[in-house]
Amino acid sequence: MMQTMKGLWLEDLRITYRTDLPIPKPRAGEALIRTRLAGICATDLEMTRGYYPFTGVPGHEFVGDVVEAPGFEGWIGQRVVGEINLICGQCEACRAGRKTHCTNRRALGIQGVDGVLAEYFTLPLANLHPVPGEITDEAAVFTEPLAAALEILQQVHIQPEMKVLVVGAGRLGLLIAQVLKLIGCDLAVVVRREAQTQLLSRWGIPAVDERTLAKGAADLVVEATGSPAGFALAREALRPAGTLVLKSTFAGDVSLNLSALVVDEIRLVGSRCGPFAPALRLLAAGLIDTQSLVSEHFTLAQGVEAFERAAKRGVLKVLVAGE
Amino acid sequence: MMQTMKGLWLEDLRITYRTDLPIPKPRAGEALIRTRLAGICATDLEMTRGYYPFTGVPGHEFVGDVVEAPGFEGWIGQRVVGEINLICGQCEACRAGRKTHCTNRRALGIQGVDGVLAEYFTLPLANLHPVPGEITDEAAVFTEPLAAALEILQQVHIQPEMKVLVVGAGRLGLLIAQVLKLIGCDLAVVVRREAQTQLLSRWGIPAVDERTLAKGAADLVVEATGSPAGFALAREALRPAGTLVLKSTFAGDVSLNLSALVVDEIRLVGSRCGPFAPALRLLAAGLIDTQSLVSEHFTLAQGVEAFERAAKRGVLKVLVAGE
Ligand SMILES: [Zn+2]
Ligand SMILES: [Zn+2]
Ligand SMILES: [Zn+2]
Ligand SMILES: [Zn+2]
Repeated sequence: MMQTMKGLWLEDLRITYRTDLPIPKPRAGEALIRTRLAGICATDLEMTRGYYPFTGVPGHEFVGDVVEAPGFEGWIGQRVVGEINLICGQCEACRAGRKTHCTNRRALGIQGVDGVLAEYFTLPLANLHPVPGEITDEAAVFTEPLAAALEILQQVHIQPEMKVLVVGAGRLGLLIAQVLKLIGCDLAVVVRREAQTQLLSRWGIPAVDERTLAKGAADLVVEATGSPAGFALAREALRPAGTLVLKSTFAGDVSLNLSALVVDEIRLVGSRCGPFAPALRLLAAGLIDTQSLVSEHFTLAQGVEAFERAAKRGVLKVLVAGE
Repeated sequence: MMQTMKGLWLEDLRITYRTDLPIPKPRAGEALIRTRLAGICATDLEMTRGYYPFTGVPGHEFVGDVVEAPGFEGWIGQRVVGEINLICGQCEACRAGRKTHCTNRRALGIQGVDGVLAEYFTLPLANLHPVPGEITDEAAVFTEPLAAALEILQQVHIQPEMKVLVVGAGRLGLLIAQVLKLIGCDLAVVVRREAQTQLLSRWGIPAVDERTLAKGAADLVVEATGSPAGFALAREALRPAGTLVLKSTFAGDVSLNLSALVVDEIRLVGSRCGPFAPALRLLAAGLIDTQSLVSEHFTLAQGVEAFERAAKRGVLKVLVAGE
C-alpha cells in the first residue's frame, strides 16, 4: 500500500491542501527530505497567476532533514538546504559548468518536479548543502533567495566606491540591500512605504523616495520590482556607462530605447539563481537579518491562507512549517 | 575680410556644396586642421534622415594636417586623426575619466560643432593623435570607426575560446569582425550578400546565412545592423548567460522580453566610441585590411554625390578628399 502525506497542491491556478499525496521514492543519488520549514516567494505567487504552467506540489525555498538516501546513507539525519535546478549533466551548458542554465533542467516546485510545500520531497544529493548548527531554521530557509541576491556579485564587479541603488524594497530587494551594504558601497533603496524606511534605517541603509531621486547619478542600479515603472525608474537613476541589474521577471514585453543604451553605453544584466555556499557563510556569520523579514508563520494545513497572506501588499516572508 | 573655404553643409536634412564657408578660428589649445581625407559613416547618413538635429558642416572621420595651433606651434605640420567628443572637463563623467560620456559634450560634425567635410575645421589639441608614417591616409581615416570596434574589447572580456558572432557585415561589422579575429576566437559573421562572403573569406572569417544559424550557441554576439530584425537574430543566436553587444543605434523603441533576459541571465552591453591609440597600433602593424573596405573616392565638390553613393546598399566606405 502506498504511503500518503500532507501537502499543498497547485492545479489550474488553485492551491489546495491535501492529505492524500503519495510520498515520493528517492532513487540512487537522491534524498528523501522531510520539510522543516518552507518559504513562499514571488515566483510561487506568480505560478498561481498563471505565469508558469505547473501542476504539482509548489515551493522551492526550504530547510529540511534527509530521511532516506539510497546508497549514501551517511546523509541521513543531515539538516540541509538545496539548490532548485535539477540538471542533466550532459548538455553544452552543464559541460561548460553553467549548471543553472542546463537546457534540460527541471526546477523544484516550478517545473517538472514536485516542490517542498509538503511533508516530504526528493532532491538529488548533488543539490544539497548541509546547514551549519549556528544557523536557525528560520534563517536557513532564506538561503535560496539570499543566494539569488549574491548572484549579482557573481556577475558584476561592484566596487566599494560605487554609488548603488536598489529599486524595490520587497522580500528580495531587502535581501539584496543587505548584501550590497556589506561591500561598503554608497547604497540607497527606493521605498514606497514607511515600514520599509524603518526596516532599512535599522540596518543603516538610506531609503529614498522616487520623487526626489537623483537622475543619472547611480553607477549601478538593481531592479527588484519586475514592473515597467520600476524599470523606467532604474534606467533614469543610472549614469551613462552604468550597469542595470534585472533581478525580477516582468509580465509581458517591455518597450525599450535601445539607441539610448548604445549612446549611453549601458550594461543590462539579467540575474537569476545564485551560489548557496556564500549564502550559508553570510548566514552563519550572522551578517544578514532574516528575522525582520519574516511576516508570519503557518502550518501546511493553513497553506491556502499562507498564499493569500503572502500576496498582500507589504507582507514580507511567509513561512510554512512542514508538519 | 573673412577668409572662405569650400565644404559641405547640412541644413534641413539637405547636403549642399558651398564655397563661401568661413574658415574657423582656432582658440588657444585648439588646432586648425586641413582635411586630407574624410569618411562617411552611418551616423552621417542618419543625420540626413533627421535622426540628429544638426545644422553645419557634417563629418567626423578624418585624417588631416595641423596648420595652426595658437600657443602650441610644435603641432604645426603634424598629420593627425582626432577623437570626436569635445568635453567640458568639469562634469561628474569627465572627472571620473569617462570622457566620451561628458554631460556637456559636443561632437565633431554631429552636435554643436562643425565637422570635417570641408577644407578646414578646428579640434582641441587634447583630441588629436599623431599618425605614424607607415599608416597611409586611406588607412588612417579608419581610425575612428576602428576605435569604435575596439571599444567592445574595452567593455567586455572576450576570451579566445569563445564562440563569437557578428550580425551585420556592413562598414562597421566588417571592422569589428577583423578586430575579433585577432583574438583567435571561434568567429562567424552573418551575411546577406555574396560580396560580403567573399570579402570575409579573404580574411579567413566564416560567413553564415541567417537561415542556417545555430540557435542559442554563441557565447557573445555583436549586433551591428541597428534593425529590430538584426537584434532578434542576435538574441536568438546567443546562449544563456551570454553577452549581446549593441554596436548600432536603432530608430525608435524596440519591444523586449525582459523576463527572458532575467531567466537566461543575458548581458546586454551598449557600445559607442572607443580608444584611438590601440586603433593606430593595429593600423601601424598592418593587421587591419582597410583597403578592401573602400568603395569609392570623391572630392568635396562631388560631396552631394558621395552621400548618395554611401547610402546605396552594399556600398562600404566612401571617402572624400579635403581639396
Ligand atoms: Zn523563490
Ligand atoms: Zn544540462
Ligand atoms: Zn562614424
Ligand atoms: Zn564633462
